[in-house]
Amino acid sequence: MSDTDLAAPCVILNEPQLAENIGAVGRVMANFGLSDLRLVRPRDGWPQERAWASASGADWTLNDAKVFERLEDAIADLRLVYATTARPRETQLPVLTPREAAAELNAASAAGWPTGLLFGGERAGLETHDIALCHGIVTIPIDPKFRSLNLAQAVAINAYEWRQTVLDRPREAFAANVAPPADQASMAGLHAHLETELEAAGFFHPPDKKPSMVKNLRVALNRARLTEQEVRTFRGVVTALSKGRGRVLANLAAQKAERGG
Amino acid sequence: MSDTDLAAPCVILNEPQLAENIGAVGRVMANFGLSDLRLVRPRDGWPQERAWASASGADWTLNDAKVFERLEDAIADLRLVYATTARPRETQLPVLTPREAAAELNAASAAGWPTGLLFGGERAGLETHDIALCHGIVTIPIDPKFRSLNLAQAVAINAYEWRQTVLDRPREAFAANVAPPADQASMAGLHAHLETELEAAGFFHPPDKKPSMVKNLRVALNRARLTEQEVRTFRGVVTALSKGRGRVLANLAAQKAERGG
Repeated sequence: MSDTDLAAPCVILNEPQLAENIGAVGRVMANFGLSDLRLVRPRDGWPQERAWASASGADWTLNDAKVFERLEDAIADLRLVYATTARPRETQLPVLTPREAAAELNAASAAGWPTGLLFGGERAGLETHDIALCHGIVTIPIDPKFRSLNLAQAVAINAYEWRQTVLDRPREAFAANVAPPADQASMAGLHAHLETELEAAGFFHPPDKKPSMVKNLRVALNRARLTEQEVRTFRGVVTALSKGRGRVLANLAAQKAERGG
Repeated sequence: MSDTDLAAPCVILNEPQLAENIGAVGRVMANFGLSDLRLVRPRDGWPQERAWASASGADWTLNDAKVFERLEDAIADLRLVYATTARPRETQLPVLTPREAAAELNAASAAGWPTGLLFGGERAGLETHDIALCHGIVTIPIDPKFRSLNLAQAVAINAYEWRQTVLDRPREAFAANVAPPADQASMAGLHAHLETELEAAGFFHPPDKKPSMVKNLRVALNRARLTEQEVRTFRGVVTALSKGRGRVLANLAAQKAERGG
């Protein structure tokens, strides 16, 4: 189901309560390319229509969800499982950030190991005996002043980190949409055009300040990293704003000629 | 409100639809130490009881939420604003991952600059003219197979990255020599001045192209991250280049009066 060519971790919800939250989990799994959802003793049974209503079309994660009576069975095939908790518990398991966990899960997936992320129910979270079935603890860096993190949000952050880790520099894909900056010859043309018109308009005074004024204008425009198209646009702007003055002079000359002639 | 000693970015929701989502945004802001929530034209008005019901006790973010009629006013005091979109748009603004954006926001906060993250409404997202008011685009690495990301999830991932970035590296001051960028109210003033003069100069033709021409000019100027001093300089540029036209009209009027009188 993923575009990443790597098996994504499954998501195990232990004793989830609200069908809406299960649906929201399915939705956000789909957002980040996860699809294997496992439910251990969902409070209101399964399936629940309200789950599909809140999945916003990510039905496949819910359609394929598997239900288990025991957590041990839900994770039986996995070779790396992390328990997600709101605060680190007193266990001797390693405690990882979502990012560190994602790196480990990614490496395990690359090795062909089935992996999973375990989440507790909305109210109680995970018991220590549930956590003890896992290889480590993932703790999201919540502000201690307000720890009540929504279940689907906890899944979102871990799923996001997993996908971010897998994706190889997503930025490069976007870079293709972005036109390259103009070359410095085009920029020099824009600078010269602007400065000529400003000179004609009497902008540079006192004259001994001109060099620093010119430099400041160039720096600001260079910082914009204008594209070739944008350079043309700005040259059009300079022309449009300046043409009044040209017209003034032409008009004055014409009128003078008329009167004088 | 945060334990990080750094001012967190504000969250601006542009035309949010569902009060439940606004409440969920408030909740997840509190999870990650954000507290300044701004609403632009919430569809069902404000306040809405259902928002508080879905905030799970993070009431303070909602109690203090500010409502604006115009996006421009909601971001007027900010010096760095990123627009969050599900997919990179065809603008010439830089595209960042949530992590890259968090690093920039963090550095700006360390320098004392007010910052913000802008999110569009549930259905429509952000329009390009909204995005053109920002300094960059943040794109969450969604699986292209299922892009429908819940609004509160989008806020969650950016808020999480902001907090993770703050926790990861104790503040290194932004380059102390660098003057802060102008606030968005100053930029709006420059945009309006330039556009008024261009309109008077007949630059915007055909007229139906004006919105996209305006948007392109704003994007390029925003990208330059002008300082207040540079904004003043560019307003001087616009004035200097435009004054010929004023003089033309004044001269023509005077000459007409002379001749006619």
